[in-house]
Amino acid sequence: MPEISSLLWRDMTVFDGNRELPEPMAVLVRDGRIEALQPMQEFDAMRCEYAHDAGRGGVMTPGLVDCHTHLVFGGSRADEFEMRLEGASYEAIAKAGGGILSTVRATRAASEEALFDKAQPRLQALIDDGATTVEIKSGYGLNVEDELKMLRVARRLGETLPVRVVTTLLGAHALPPEYAAASDTYIDLVCDEMIPAAVAEGLVDMVDVFCEAIAFSVAQCERVFQAAQTHDLPIKAHAEQLSKLGGSAMAAGYGARSVDHIEYLDEAGIAAMRQAGSVAVILPGAFHTLRETQLPPIQALRDAGVPMAVATDCNPGSSPLFMPTLMLNLACTLFRLTPREALAGMTAHGAAALGRRELGRLYEGAPADLCVWDIQRPAELAYAVQPGRLRQRLFRGELTHDR
Amino acid sequence: MPEISSLLWRDMTVFDGNRELPEPMAVLVRDGRIEALQPMQEFDAMRCEYAHDAGRGGVMTPGLVDCHTHLVFGGSRADEFEMRLEGASYEAIAKAGGGILSTVRATRAASEEALFDKAQPRLQALIDDGATTVEIKSGYGLNVEDELKMLRVARRLGETLPVRVVTTLLGAHALPPEYAAASDTYIDLVCDEMIPAAVAEGLVDMVDVFCEAIAFSVAQCERVFQAAQTHDLPIKAHAEQLSKLGGSAMAAGYGARSVDHIEYLDEAGIAAMRQAGSVAVILPGAFHTLRETQLPPIQALRDAGVPMAVATDCNPGSSPLFMPTLMLNLACTLFRLTPREALAGMTAHGAAALGRRELGRLYEGAPADLCVWDIQRPAELAYAVQPGRLRQRLFRGELTHDR
Ligand SMILES: [Zn+2]
Ligand SMILES: [Zn+2]
Repeated sequence: MPEISSLLWRDMTVFDGNRELPEPMAVLVRDGRIEALQPMQEFDAMRCEYAHDAGRGGVMTPGLVDCHTHLVFGGSRADEFEMRLEGASYEAIAKAGGGILSTVRATRAASEEALFDKAQPRLQALIDDGATTVEIKSGYGLNVEDELKMLRVARRLGETLPVRVVTTLLGAHALPPEYAAASDTYIDLVCDEMIPAAVAEGLVDMVDVFCEAIAFSVAQCERVFQAAQTHDLPIKAHAEQLSKLGGSAMAAGYGARSVDHIEYLDEAGIAAMRQAGSVAVILPGAFHTLRETQLPPIQALRDAGVPMAVATDCNPGSSPLFMPTLMLNLACTLFRLTPREALAGMTAHGAAALGRRELGRLYEGAPADLCVWDIQRPAELAYAVQPGRLRQRLFRGELTHDR
Repeated sequence: MPEISSLLWRDMTVFDGNRELPEPMAVLVRDGRIEALQPMQEFDAMRCEYAHDAGRGGVMTPGLVDCHTHLVFGGSRADEFEMRLEGASYEAIAKAGGGILSTVRATRAASEEALFDKAQPRLQALIDDGATTVEIKSGYGLNVEDELKMLRVARRLGETLPVRVVTTLLGAHALPPEYAAASDTYIDLVCDEMIPAAVAEGLVDMVDVFCEAIAFSVAQCERVFQAAQTHDLPIKAHAEQLSKLGGSAMAAGYGARSVDHIEYLDEAGIAAMRQAGSVAVILPGAFHTLRETQLPPIQALRDAGVPMAVATDCNPGSSPLFMPTLMLNLACTLFRLTPREALAGMTAHGAAALGRRELGRLYEGAPADLCVWDIQRPAELAYAVQPGRLRQRLFRGELTHDR
């Protein structure tokens, strides 16, 4: 009698988070873990005659890890997108209430329930495209109450949908209008009230900042990291996206799990990240949407051995792209990553960027978060953009998709 | 008792193929046609108390029309994609059997059944993203037997799946190796044998050519058009993609339904197309994949009033992108179309590029090919890339998707 809690795949082409394994594999999942991951030739089928036959052939990967998203937000920026293409000036758009502050207004005005209902289909889109772990940032509340509201929605999404959600407090995302010309006072609020309140409610796994001329200075971001440290919270940074301020090296000095965007990263920043073990998170969706031309220093990162993660950065302004596998294609086409690097970037290195090195990899004993795709070779996931290739998805050992 | 063959939507935001209608609409479908399309305020609900309530709110568009695809092919070019990103030279890839001729070899070697089985999930991906009409070209057989085989597969796809398939003979796609240095002799074959044989079997709706230095000259393409004319077949052309040869103006002279790619199109070409009523088909997927930098002359086309269609161009070499709504985003982001233009390009103008002006539009009496999307404004379809927003899809009046 096959035991449905045990699943057995045969003749699988396996990408284990770092590389394609050289032989067809047998994979046995039991009690939420990968119990066996063995070449077919060595596999003793007798050992699991009790298991349910889950299929044969195709490509198995770890569940995808989307390590950088802003998917909880109010409102939409489709009107702004349209206005800009219809020729409206930035001034006209700002006058019409566009830009990040329009998202802040809409997010503040929305109830927790409304934010949840709007975020759910976006997160479902990531799940249906293979994601099993998704990071979600706050950053459109910009006051204690509304930042916490966003984090509560993120937590509840993770409790409701079949996906691991990692929450990040990004209070230092933009300067709210009520602190205009008082950015240091706003940073006080982030450090002295927002972080402690989020910790007290158990809402926050990591702390992030936006280090940029249009956001916060290196010194201000450093204060946020010091506050995070006093609460033992790991940190990460948006840095070197639009200009070179040195935020990456500073963040690395605080042991940043990742530094994200980094189009303008220099050698000193790369060296600091290597030394700290920080992951470089590259975000081709924002590069595409903003029509950026400054490429992140991929070859230098490769030469230095800094691991590269790839994420959707999904957000209403600069990356309204809710599709992890599209990012694999964009990372290869725009940034010239190899398909292997792109896939590692959305599995093992994505997990490392979240400090969850047990995830994003397939090995005996690993949590059984995995995907089976109707393709022949892992590279096809980056080569073609084609929704509907996900044959099976396993989350904590449970089949959530099966056709 | 509601009649299931009659469907009624209320309070719909309707994009009719050219523009967003200014008021919330009621839409009644009966016997495969749109029977009523009226502002809610004027709508007499009594008139259709027999109809099944199909829903309320959201955005309704015509079914999408993908007017340029090469989705029937053998083999895969994922390995070539990977080799190139791993640093292999074009020579090494050619030596390993890459390029279009690798697709020709694999297509010739494949049975009709095998080609059908491989094409079906690709076409299904287009259907699941809202396409109700899809053009499919031959062009990887390059001899009479294998070109006809491709067209038979295309016809059978249209008979099997819920989608209208329009077939195009593209015998003049590339020079097959057995005709090296004898391209005029190959054009003889296309004109004297391939076109007549395809006509005799009823397999061909249109004739296409690839007019380019790496393919066929203007004079050779003109011969193909003359042969098509003798069989009353409408024509179209791939032209001005990589260089300016003047193929567009020549094709317009033969009344081309469309001229496609046209990155290098000049004023004379635009004037000829306007005069002929040819549609300009722009293909942002190939532009993206090839990292082209020469933009098609969008503003000049707009100024001249030449209608622009947008299509996937899905094919294994230069656009392995099987997702119509992604093209809406790429057309806006890369080519600066407005969302309205992009949507018209995949509906009314896409249909016009196929000579099927009754399709791709919503009007009373229209064939009921339509989509209902879980969004608020039509522009969101181009703004965000998010699989899973298709709520309902109607093909010839039948609900094929409903959730
Ligand atoms: Zn971000
Ligand atoms: Zn083409």
